[in-house]
Amino acid sequence: DIEAPEEFYEKIKEFKGILSYADSQGYSELLDSFVKYYKGKDILFKKEEIIVTIGATEALSMAMLVTCDIGDEILIPEPMYASYILLAQQNSVNIIPINTKVENDFRLPEEDEIVSLITDKTRAILISNPANPTGRVYTKEEVYLIAKIAKEHDLFIFADEVYREFIYDDVELISFAHIDDIQDRVLLIDSISKRYSACGARIGSIASKNKDLMKQILKLAQARLCAPLLEQIGATSFTNVPEEYIIESQKEYKKRRDLVYQALSNMEGVVCHKPQGAFYMVVKLPVENAEDFIIWLLREFSIDNETIFLAPAAGFYGTEGLGLDEVRISYCINQESLKKAMNILAEGLKEYNKIKK
Amino acid sequence: DIEAPEEFYEKIKEFKGILSYADSQGYSELLDSFVKYYKGKDILFKKEEIIVTIGATEALSMAMLVTCDIGDEILIPEPMYASYILLAQQNSVNIIPINTKVENDFRLPEEDEIVSLITDKTRAILISNPANPTGRVYTKEEVYLIAKIAKEHDLFIFADEVYREFIYDDVELISFAHIDDIQDRVLLIDSISKRYSACGARIGSIASKNKDLMKQILKLAQARLCAPLLEQIGATSFTNVPEEYIIESQKEYKKRRDLVYQALSNMEGVVCHKPQGAFYMVVKLPVENAEDFIIWLLREFSIDNETIFLAPAAGFYGTEGLGLDEVRISYCINQESLKKAMNILAEGLKEYNKIKK
Repeated sequence: DIEAPEEFYEKIKEFKGILSYADSQGYSELLDSFVKYYKGKDILFKKEEIIVTIGATEALSMAMLVTCDIGDEILIPEPMYASYILLAQQNSVNIIPINTKVENDFRLPEEDEIVSLITDKTRAILISNPANPTGRVYTKEEVYLIAKIAKEHDLFIFADEVYREFIYDDVELISFAHIDDIQDRVLLIDSISKRYSACGARIGSIASKNKDLMKQILKLAQARLCAPLLEQIGATSFTNVPEEYIIESQKEYKKRRDLVYQALSNMEGVVCHKPQGAFYMVVKLPVENAEDFIIWLLREFSIDNETIFLAPAAGFYGTEGLGLDEVRISYCINQESLKKAMNILAEGLKEYNKIKK
Repeated sequence: DIEAPEEFYEKIKEFKGILSYADSQGYSELLDSFVKYYKGKDILFKKEEIIVTIGATEALSMAMLVTCDIGDEILIPEPMYASYILLAQQNSVNIIPINTKVENDFRLPEEDEIVSLITDKTRAILISNPANPTGRVYTKEEVYLIAKIAKEHDLFIFADEVYREFIYDDVELISFAHIDDIQDRVLLIDSISKRYSACGARIGSIASKNKDLMKQILKLAQARLCAPLLEQIGATSFTNVPEEYIIESQKEYKKRRDLVYQALSNMEGVVCHKPQGAFYMVVKLPVENAEDFIIWLLREFSIDNETIFLAPAAGFYGTEGLGLDEVRISYCINQESLKKAMNILAEGLKEYNKIKK
């Protein structure tokens, strides 16, 4: 619900001329601004190592297409972003979930447990960090463990770091692009959607120092001609957006995170991880079947004529039967609404459990 | 080189608010305006029968994904739009070319020749009409022949009609969406790119009365979240663009077509079809190897320090070894430049053939 920076709209308004196809690699000025942005994060990509994509989803699809044959496998920590599941299906790639648990703060399992999932069809590990939908920011140890496994087992790493700017508390994000000796196997996936509250712009990017992969990705980019031109032009303005824009939206999200986490912590029987990044949480509820509870909330329960909709978390698991008593909560709405929603959830849980028992 | 209508930019400038994801099916007002646009063409689609896509390329990719399994086949007349070849590769679909020849005005072959290409893996026929890159507008007989074959052999028809507005002379376009008894097998693919000189906007659509296919396509649309929002908003203005905008751009393209066709007709040994639509031609040159001639033009030949670049037509054929003495000419540049280009081509051909013989 936060507005995109005014610089974005200004830049588009200034545009005069022919709305022709942009370069398939990306609008030149936007590529320059990505180089500059990454430099500020100690990530050194040259212009030719970046391709503008139609959102992070296209970047991911491309990553799968250039590294996997039909039936190949990708390891992904679960619960995972639901679009990963759809994109993998679409590209005939099988997801092998790395199971993580709310009780364990969604920490990655030990090396041998991850390694035991690798087969001769495994091509890559996809890590979203900060993680959607768990809100986990992986520690330096976890990031380096993935890097080590990738190196030892010759796997690519798809590093989806679109929530890079949304980190709360005093934790540091270690980007896979920071680890020198794996740069031939890292594909960095990014998006302006969250950073600049511009989801609808559909501007993302994929970057890698692996020349061969980038050559193949460029071919895919050529087949779809280009990313939308006006929105690319708008996005060139983002390197001029004052630092406060990001800081203000971080602050706002931190308040929302605190509010939601505090409220959930006070609810009896609820198990949750304090998310350190992104704006989602996966929460275990004291109910047998979260979907049943959600439907009950929608049909039977309200406070002042309002109720809430929660996403059942089962859809975020690659393993059948997991997450049945969990929900995904998104806190990208304003604090007032969040307060009301948390109250409805707390009261709803009490009422539901009174009836069901 | 024609500017998009000012209404498009006006609409975007008016936009205020949150740049959130649009609905995966498409921005509601834009879907309404597509319904209205089609109605004006005697094509009756309801809103729920249309999905906004990221250009016609995404629409085509979706059409392939929901109708074909890995290794299935699609018939496409050759020479064909080069992106078809890339998109088919990307989606693990095999193209079976229906050969057409410049000497025969790129007319479709007889029924039995087309039918002989059908196997138990054939799922669809893809027809671009008006055709890119040949400029052919298929006759009523040809369109109905394809419809008949599709019906008798249970095939889908991907009707790529993005050049619908670019028809010269007094020919009528028969849309596959006009033929009642095949509507369960027609996927109409469209784009605002050519119609409103807005290639960079990446706004297309796919429409069908086949509910099952549309349901599957919507799932694909959900996986990539949405088409770019601002450009969708801009495109809603297109039903308000005065009819003259299209008429003026048609007139301009007709002049360009006439100029290029006239010039080519006067060149000795050149064989070409007079295109009745789109803005491309495939032309046979009196040379053995068009690519060699093109490279020679770039390296060795100029008039007043200018030379031309032509696309070798071999890349537009699905059949290996065809089109080696042909080039694809695009006439979407201004008349002055086209005149110069035609002069360079005429003089270049004379000089090249003098040297080579």
